[in-house]
Amino acid sequence: MIYLDNAATTRPDGQCLDKAKQFIYENYYNPSALYAEGYNLHLTLKRAKKDILHCIANDNFDITVTSCGTEADNHAIFCAGRRGNVVTTLGEHSAVFSAVSELKQRAIEVRFAPLNCDGSVDIEELLKLVDEKTSLVSVIHVNNETGAVNDINAIAAMVKRKNKNTVFHSDGVQAFGKIPFKLGADVDLYSVSAHKIGGMKGTGALIRRKTLSLKPYIYGGGQENGMRSGTENVFGIMMFSCAACKRYEHLNENFNHVRQLWQTLWGELDKELFTKISPDGGSPYILTVAAAGVRGETILHEADDAGLIIGTGSACSSNEKKRYSRVILACGVNEHTADGILRLSFSPDNTIEEVVRAAAILNKLVKNRLEIMG
Amino acid sequence: MIYLDNAATTRPDGQCLDKAKQFIYENYYNPSALYAEGYNLHLTLKRAKKDILHCIANDNFDITVTSCGTEADNHAIFCAGRRGNVVTTLGEHSAVFSAVSELKQRAIEVRFAPLNCDGSVDIEELLKLVDEKTSLVSVIHVNNETGAVNDINAIAAMVKRKNKNTVFHSDGVQAFGKIPFKLGADVDLYSVSAHKIGGMKGTGALIRRKTLSLKPYIYGGGQENGMRSGTENVFGIMMFSCAACKRYEHLNENFNHVRQLWQTLWGELDKELFTKISPDGGSPYILTVAAAGVRGETILHEADDAGLIIGTGSACSSNEKKRYSRVILACGVNEHTADGILRLSFSPDNTIEEVVRAAAILNKLVKNRLEIMG
Repeated sequence: MIYLDNAATTRPDGQCLDKAKQFIYENYYNPSALYAEGYNLHLTLKRAKKDILHCIANDNFDITVTSCGTEADNHAIFCAGRRGNVVTTLGEHSAVFSAVSELKQRAIEVRFAPLNCDGSVDIEELLKLVDEKTSLVSVIHVNNETGAVNDINAIAAMVKRKNKNTVFHSDGVQAFGKIPFKLGADVDLYSVSAHKIGGMKGTGALIRRKTLSLKPYIYGGGQENGMRSGTENVFGIMMFSCAACKRYEHLNENFNHVRQLWQTLWGELDKELFTKISPDGGSPYILTVAAAGVRGETILHEADDAGLIIGTGSACSSNEKKRYSRVILACGVNEHTADGILRLSFSPDNTIEEVVRAAAILNKLVKNRLEIMG
Repeated sequence: MIYLDNAATTRPDGQCLDKAKQFIYENYYNPSALYAEGYNLHLTLKRAKKDILHCIANDNFDITVTSCGTEADNHAIFCAGRRGNVVTTLGEHSAVFSAVSELKQRAIEVRFAPLNCDGSVDIEELLKLVDEKTSLVSVIHVNNETGAVNDINAIAAMVKRKNKNTVFHSDGVQAFGKIPFKLGADVDLYSVSAHKIGGMKGTGALIRRKTLSLKPYIYGGGQENGMRSGTENVFGIMMFSCAACKRYEHLNENFNHVRQLWQTLWGELDKELFTKISPDGGSPYILTVAAAGVRGETILHEADDAGLIIGTGSACSSNEKKRYSRVILACGVNEHTADGILRLSFSPDNTIEEVVRAAAILNKLVKNRLEIMG
């Protein structure tokens, strides 16, 4: 099988598994335990978390491990968006979108900034929505459906100029471990996830500027310096740390390789059958195209039968059971085109041969389908 | 090493690891993905979750997988304790205790029922606290520091007779997979955890009566029927299901074996050095004793050096950095005795030989320490 749905999840990294499995089989203690085995594990976790943090941030920031990117987003939204209004974009992942929808139920005004046609936020419109009552602004870093990159360091600085008390959060799940980036001086909160970069499902983190005081979202035994209680998922954290360090060690070479995958795949796709939705200068890890006149879901199933695994958009949105992606529609794509959306997403392990074969499969399937439909 | 801190965490079950590791190495897809591999995984998870549920409940209940017992407790407390007053006990795990403390900050009145000397709740006093404004009652099933069992089915029925609209929750983390029990008709919410019974850290569940409408606590892509968003921790859930089924398949034989461990260990401890805090009829998985005149923490470290791993109380409380356990003090134990608390907790894998050796080590260490102290 050719696996091109790496934005949904990735195969856990084999080298990291070899290193981390001792934390299942031998070193299975509770890191809050007082005896040496527990305390040593506590120290090991502390180092592992610092290693994740230092991939993209300096010591002005702290890291709280969470159970996933979604929990990190919820923590940011519900604990920083407590009053006045909250400004976000129409291009958010459902972890932010659903959380701010819940905020509306709690009498917080939520304002949505429109998107440019590539899925990035319209910055000018976003800034118009920020005022003295804005408690939180949340802007996704890399759009998970198109790969468009928002320059969140610059946006955060502009937001702070309008209101220095506004907290700035970004969902960095599709950016972390993928695109060159360091957290700038105006970003307060940043969500990341392990399983998108070779870590395990069930681990994420919320990175927080130390000067920002934030309430916990999950209360209990006081783990994670009181910011996130619950026995630490030791194996998950060790996998996350290993995977993150590995991704950052090879960040540029991975980036160049994946960009070559992106360019090759797009180059090989039949331009009479496919329209490109992703921007040219976006994250090369995501190539979203629309197959003219066919349903993306049909192609997805036929591709699966032909040995190619792809997505139609956010895997998380599949639970919403809506025909069209709200993010794709917000890019100004019409329903006819939105129906044919395919998301092809890469990992550094994918090869040029794979994407060439993938393009051939997709060209053939869409052509056949159009012929059948007459 | 002899490991007698199984109430803090357990070694993941080897047989379950052999079965579940395919969900790391091969079957690593996103269960929300639309292609066959994703959908099949979705169905596999659905069955695995039902299997966990059916260990203790019928189809009047539903199960939502969470990232830990603490998250399950937080979900119950914050989403069911929204108005009037909340009644709980002085014997709760910090996952409930810290959550209700936060409720107080939100202008919810919190009422604490006192404990009997074994750590079980004083039912009469608890019922006095329930009135027409009580939105939630939360009573721990098995006290994690003493092993005392609260008859939560009976208590729930009594609570409902006082106020049929009150939601009844119980933290079942130290009961699930350990003591014979089925969820009765009056319990609405029940929290469980995987890593206390041979599953992985990072997985728990909230079991909910289907007729109870409850808001989600983590919003996003709509996983878990919208009750708990975030990509499912597939490996963790498969481990949980396997471990739970295995524990319930052997529940009675495990119970009898562990009771024998409990009785043997207590029988072998020098009664001039140790006082029993745990009740005779409690969960045999926990034997809490007080070593007269010494600090429990000192003995814990010396035991560790001698090849015996034990606890001094809730591992989670170690983050609170308080000298005395609030739960042990609430049992009416004085500070002098509370200082010497040791929690010895079992798994079905422990042997009689291990507990005999453990008793000899503890007898010797406490005796030595008292001699040194003169």
